[in-house]
Amino acid sequence: MDLEKFYNHIDQNQDLYVQRLREAVAIPSVSGDASYRNDVFRMGDWLIGIFEELGINYKAEDIGTHELDGQTLKLPKILLGSYGNDPNKKTILVYGHYDVQPALKEDGWGTDPWELVEDSQGRLLGRGSSDDKGPIIGWLNTIEAYQKLELEFPVNLKICFEGMEESGSEGIDDLIVREAKGYFKDVDCVTISDNYWLGTTKPCLTYGLRGISYFKLTISGPGRDLHSGVFGGTVHEPMTDLAHLFSKLVKADGHILIPGIYDDVAKLDETESNTYKTIQFKQQELHDAIDSDNSIHDNEIDTLMHRWRYPTLSLHGIEGAFSAPGAKTVIPAKVIGKFSIRTVPNMDPDKVTQLVTEFLDKEFAKLGSKNKMKLECIHDGKPWVANTDHWNYVAAAKAVEKVYHVKPDLTREGGSIPVTLTFQEALGDKNVLLLPMGRGDDGAHSINEKLDRSNYINGIKLFGTYLHEVAHIKTE
Amino acid sequence: MDLEKFYNHIDQNQDLYVQRLREAVAIPSVSGDASYRNDVFRMGDWLIGIFEELGINYKAEDIGTHELDGQTLKLPKILLGSYGNDPNKKTILVYGHYDVQPALKEDGWGTDPWELVEDSQGRLLGRGSSDDKGPIIGWLNTIEAYQKLELEFPVNLKICFEGMEESGSEGIDDLIVREAKGYFKDVDCVTISDNYWLGTTKPCLTYGLRGISYFKLTISGPGRDLHSGVFGGTVHEPMTDLAHLFSKLVKADGHILIPGIYDDVAKLDETESNTYKTIQFKQQELHDAIDSDNSIHDNEIDTLMHRWRYPTLSLHGIEGAFSAPGAKTVIPAKVIGKFSIRTVPNMDPDKVTQLVTEFLDKEFAKLGSKNKMKLECIHDGKPWVANTDHWNYVAAAKAVEKVYHVKPDLTREGGSIPVTLTFQEALGDKNVLLLPMGRGDDGAHSINEKLDRSNYINGIKLFGTYLHEVAHIKTE
Ligand SMILES: [Zn+2]
Ligand SMILES: [Zn+2]
Ligand SMILES: [Zn+2]
Ligand SMILES: [Zn+2]
Repeated sequence: MDLEKFYNHIDQNQDLYVQRLREAVAIPSVSGDASYRNDVFRMGDWLIGIFEELGINYKAEDIGTHELDGQTLKLPKILLGSYGNDPNKKTILVYGHYDVQPALKEDGWGTDPWELVEDSQGRLLGRGSSDDKGPIIGWLNTIEAYQKLELEFPVNLKICFEGMEESGSEGIDDLIVREAKGYFKDVDCVTISDNYWLGTTKPCLTYGLRGISYFKLTISGPGRDLHSGVFGGTVHEPMTDLAHLFSKLVKADGHILIPGIYDDVAKLDETESNTYKTIQFKQQELHDAIDSDNSIHDNEIDTLMHRWRYPTLSLHGIEGAFSAPGAKTVIPAKVIGKFSIRTVPNMDPDKVTQLVTEFLDKEFAKLGSKNKMKLECIHDGKPWVANTDHWNYVAAAKAVEKVYHVKPDLTREGGSIPVTLTFQEALGDKNVLLLPMGRGDDGAHSINEKLDRSNYINGIKLFGTYLHEVAHIKTE
Repeated sequence: MDLEKFYNHIDQNQDLYVQRLREAVAIPSVSGDASYRNDVFRMGDWLIGIFEELGINYKAEDIGTHELDGQTLKLPKILLGSYGNDPNKKTILVYGHYDVQPALKEDGWGTDPWELVEDSQGRLLGRGSSDDKGPIIGWLNTIEAYQKLELEFPVNLKICFEGMEESGSEGIDDLIVREAKGYFKDVDCVTISDNYWLGTTKPCLTYGLRGISYFKLTISGPGRDLHSGVFGGTVHEPMTDLAHLFSKLVKADGHILIPGIYDDVAKLDETESNTYKTIQFKQQELHDAIDSDNSIHDNEIDTLMHRWRYPTLSLHGIEGAFSAPGAKTVIPAKVIGKFSIRTVPNMDPDKVTQLVTEFLDKEFAKLGSKNKMKLECIHDGKPWVANTDHWNYVAAAKAVEKVYHVKPDLTREGGSIPVTLTFQEALGDKNVLLLPMGRGDDGAHSINEKLDRSNYINGIKLFGTYLHEVAHIKTE
């Protein structure tokens, strides 16, 4: 395949691709707001229109209803696509989502969030431009480019585009499990384009995500809220107990104080250690992102390791205490502390819950309080890490080198994308690759979300090249 | 004066007095809700009607406007009354308030809160029955009883009834200071009937109130709220710092950990110690009140001393952290911890602020956090304690013995009634007495507020007897 010709075609058709993204951004497919539900359906239909144009076989899976804003609503359809069915080709599953975060001009957008506007620096501004309409349309543009150039499509492509990602991906886990031996039967590996470069200049492949264990720590005492004037000094106050327990969990420098919590953290080996040395990242980028210079670590590698490969514990807040502005002299009767631990390989959620429970039981007993303590893990998800020696990563790295003329950084993310692990596990331990299109400053969930034109156009080239490399790589 | 005859008259007219209270309760004079402001004015006018019937000179002081619920509202008038002007008599100032707490049947009231209903146990149920309409009408009923019996009124009575007590007593401090040498010029002492017996069976005189110093402890770090997945482990989290500082302030058993905070607490002398020995109070009453058995102390005296004569520190809550139900993985950028110290004689608010500031500065420095800490005392009030050897208390004690045939308990309260100290200080260190009419279980700010018929009727007798005793007591 003549990649130069492929790239030229994409460059020459870039305005068409931008126009396609403009049409998609104009559909405000906000999944988290009942009043936009019809637009989410419109967005699904718009994609189906392109599927049909391109001759992609598809089924639009009806996954039932849910409750939102006091209404029973139909869930957006999950679009399953299938392009090509050659037993001699590899089968690649690509995932993305066509719903978006809410956006209001009044939130501080410089432009109408539902109109794609290109600024003088070639930034395509609009809600969903980068998360995740640019990438999903990117895959479709790639197919079209192969067609227009009358090139043989290098793989069998399976597509899974959902419309509820920004609202908890309702229904997708069940569907993936259900279709593992059906629609997704022959999948060799999975590629997800729904994250971002670490910074703004260097492409990356993302091979790890942290897990999470989210806890509710309830302390209850009096039967009702009390007046601190009347009862202060005579009753065990739940807030006092909670403050003491919170302070035992984590030090000001972020070190978790729960005994045993670091025991299962994967040891840093030389291979992994080396990946950090070349990563393009500056402390200043962290400071810009947090709009402050209160970073814990003074160097890039420690910062990235604590974001990606070490567990952390954050205290999120307290339910039931006085939280409004002003002054109120209440002794809250029952307070619910919320905290979570970001977990990393090879931590196990059940063991994490056990360690936290044992520790807090012991610390609460030390307080000698007559209040009652209850700890619940209300949600957990395992960490994920992929084998970057797999041909899927090797092919993607080659593609990045061809399009961007640079070896990609190997990055992880500190947060979770639960569907990643679902795909890996449901499909029988298939390799999953996160292949970002946009940059770290795209502002996915913020105002003024954008996708740089160069990232969009080069992303289309990257996807096409990646599929080409996948087809030709030795898999032994 | 023939007290038996006076008491008989009051007993015979009790239905009239209850009817009067019924009329007052029917006026929903809620000061804290703009939509009831007209009723607060109606309540003031209703009282003026009685002032005129009884020949009480008065002025209804217009104290301007304020902002409430987004509206500019006229403040309820402060009613100043003057009954008698004999230079040979003592002049007693009585204070009370004619506004009430909000009440909705839906809150759980068994009856319509704005209709006085007497149950089978002689409890007069209705909002404001005990707080504070029963007591203020009690004073007026007393005057009427003297008139009907053609008895010489024993003192010159000054009256100060406000309509904003439940909403911060707006405007009253200024008025008291302004009238100290005017309307209140000849006042010998002050009596406030706006609190309650400690329990349900034994009358008391109240001679002390705790002060309060309310603090806002702000910790700020990142420029905006952050996602704990992306930034957990790389930035100093304000919640972590706040949890550590909160835990340094107070132990689970209520002991305050701020060095020096107990230094100025008045030593317990034998006289005071003795007052506790006879006080009618059972731990069970505390447990009933808090609807739990999580009391810190195992005996009545320690419980009362920690409510009345020792400082306490309560953690009220946190502004800016995640406080809603559910799970959110936020790192709050700025959190504001709210806590207050209930202060006692002879603690000084300025010194309290200084001690708290020095301690928290030192503890925050120990954390080694790059966040910023700011401590503000947003409101303080001094503790108050009266000399119970004063003739005002002696006269009141004699009156209690005559009406109830028991020596009153000498009690304090753990909370504050700021106007108490204002009267004492503005009038030139005049003795102030708190002379409660209702019982400890009246539920002043709760649903099903009530005043027992016997407390109401005996309260009228008590007020009349008290004024009689005041007139005859040696004051040297
Ligand atoms: Zn996304
Ligand atoms: Zn998103
Ligand atoms: Zn009151
Ligand atoms: Zn009140």
